[in-house]
Amino acid sequence: MPVTVECVPNFSEGRRKEVVDKIVFSIRSVPGIKILDVEMDPDHNRSVVTFTGNKETVQEGAFRGARAARELIDLNLHKGQHPRMGALDVLPFVPISGVTLQDCVEIAEKVGSRIAKELKIPVYLYEAAARKPERKNLENVRRGEFEGLREAILKEESRFPDFGLRALHPTAGATAVGARMPLIAFNVNLSTKDISVAKKIAKKIRASSGGLPCVKALGFVLENRGMVQVSTNLTDYTVTSMSKVYEAIEKETEEAGVDIAEGEIIGLIPLDAVCDVASRHLKISSFTSNQVLERRIWG
Amino acid sequence: MPVTVECVPNFSEGRRKEVVDKIVFSIRSVPGIKILDVEMDPDHNRSVVTFTGNKETVQEGAFRGARAARELIDLNLHKGQHPRMGALDVLPFVPISGVTLQDCVEIAEKVGSRIAKELKIPVYLYEAAARKPERKNLENVRRGEFEGLREAILKEESRFPDFGLRALHPTAGATAVGARMPLIAFNVNLSTKDISVAKKIAKKIRASSGGLPCVKALGFVLENRGMVQVSTNLTDYTVTSMSKVYEAIEKETEEAGVDIAEGEIIGLIPLDAVCDVASRHLKISSFTSNQVLERRIWG
Repeated sequence: MPVTVECVPNFSEGRRKEVVDKIVFSIRSVPGIKILDVEMDPDHNRSVVTFTGNKETVQEGAFRGARAARELIDLNLHKGQHPRMGALDVLPFVPISGVTLQDCVEIAEKVGSRIAKELKIPVYLYEAAARKPERKNLENVRRGEFEGLREAILKEESRFPDFGLRALHPTAGATAVGARMPLIAFNVNLSTKDISVAKKIAKKIRASSGGLPCVKALGFVLENRGMVQVSTNLTDYTVTSMSKVYEAIEKETEEAGVDIAEGEIIGLIPLDAVCDVASRHLKISSFTSNQVLERRIWG
Repeated sequence: MPVTVECVPNFSEGRRKEVVDKIVFSIRSVPGIKILDVEMDPDHNRSVVTFTGNKETVQEGAFRGARAARELIDLNLHKGQHPRMGALDVLPFVPISGVTLQDCVEIAEKVGSRIAKELKIPVYLYEAAARKPERKNLENVRRGEFEGLREAILKEESRFPDFGLRALHPTAGATAVGARMPLIAFNVNLSTKDISVAKKIAKKIRASSGGLPCVKALGFVLENRGMVQVSTNLTDYTVTSMSKVYEAIEKETEEAGVDIAEGEIIGLIPLDAVCDVASRHLKISSFTSNQVLERRIWG
């Protein structure tokens, strides 16, 4: 099996295509790196690059991206709707295949340390890589953004970086480096227009109100479809799977007397998450992604 | 997406490892070919090689395997429990990814024609590649085996090959070349020792007694586990999926008042078959293997 680590750097540039192209080119210059996606958002003035590599190449690709962003982006000139504190703003590493979340924490530490040392950019470790509990949440790390953090990092102990100097880089700011599980965006649409049903179910199942662990959930109206939606994010599918979320919603809809119209998966999901659902449906406790033919061929 | 064709040649040698090694080596000598599995069976005196390639490389690999088998195996000296008629006995091509069953029929025709022409081995097209309806079933093609076919091919019109001379190769016999969908071996174990329940359900769901199309099914006793098993083979999961089979069995068990203990998948299954089950379980009509992260990375 190939070791696959995903890296999803967010850069504070979503308008100048030539800048984003140069950054992507620098990442891609590492042999073995595969660029899966580049999304430029002009309103947020931010770009999200998705790439993969093994434990070593992913580190080098991330570092080269950070270095290019430092050369090409000046936060003093940056405006956009999305909160940001660095040219390379956030840098999460995600375990996909043959690698654990803990491995990704170690990768985040190595790359973070190197960015601080060689690029003189202070680094904050966040999510699973956080060394302080409050830094698990990225919002706490980025509070005040580039302009506010520029002052706070100098004197507030709680804002001192995990790696590097206690001063922002003058143009590249600071970078949050972290590790997290793949995020699954899974929605369940209900055959009713009553938004209170979706909101009630979302509240019941989400972790923050005592529901399923590692599940975020909100209720929305789908105007055009005449339905409501329980929209969920699974932050660790190995803790709470899509099956569990679906079954929990199903139970609530039965009590509420409404039907599930359909499920939806937004974006990409890991093979293991799909196999997990299949094994649940077919009651096969022993089924794993090792039995998937393509995994043997491509892996 | 990579084009992936699987090829599963069966060779009439399951005892002399050096012979099987040489055959596998000759297949592997084609750049781009990936050998997934080699199984030698001494009782059947037969080996099954599983390999993959694209539309071109898979043809060249199959041909080189056929050529090596002709050099190394003499059917006049072959004994084993399994029916056989050739040194390379059967050669099925299976669509895995980015390729259709019809593409595999064309591959079978090209390779079959080349084996007949260059190796002087008569070729019968079978399963989806069959040009005569009775040859869809391999048993009809192989009837009488090497010894019987040696006579029949000379004078019985129904036994004339699709490619090549109307005479067996003196040592390599004849080869059946075909195309088929990936086979899925899916079992469902029931919490009862009453074999009549498993047999009744198997009969109800199998195609041959008017049940689900492309499904074979038998009932077995699992002595050690104190259970019975409905053992199924799905010959085209795009016609009847694992979900459909499971749900049909579930319905029957409910009527019979027994529980499903567990499902089992034997061997490897295609990614699309797994995604199909997951999409059914989560009621996501739009979900396909294109949304599987690893497919983007590895493909």
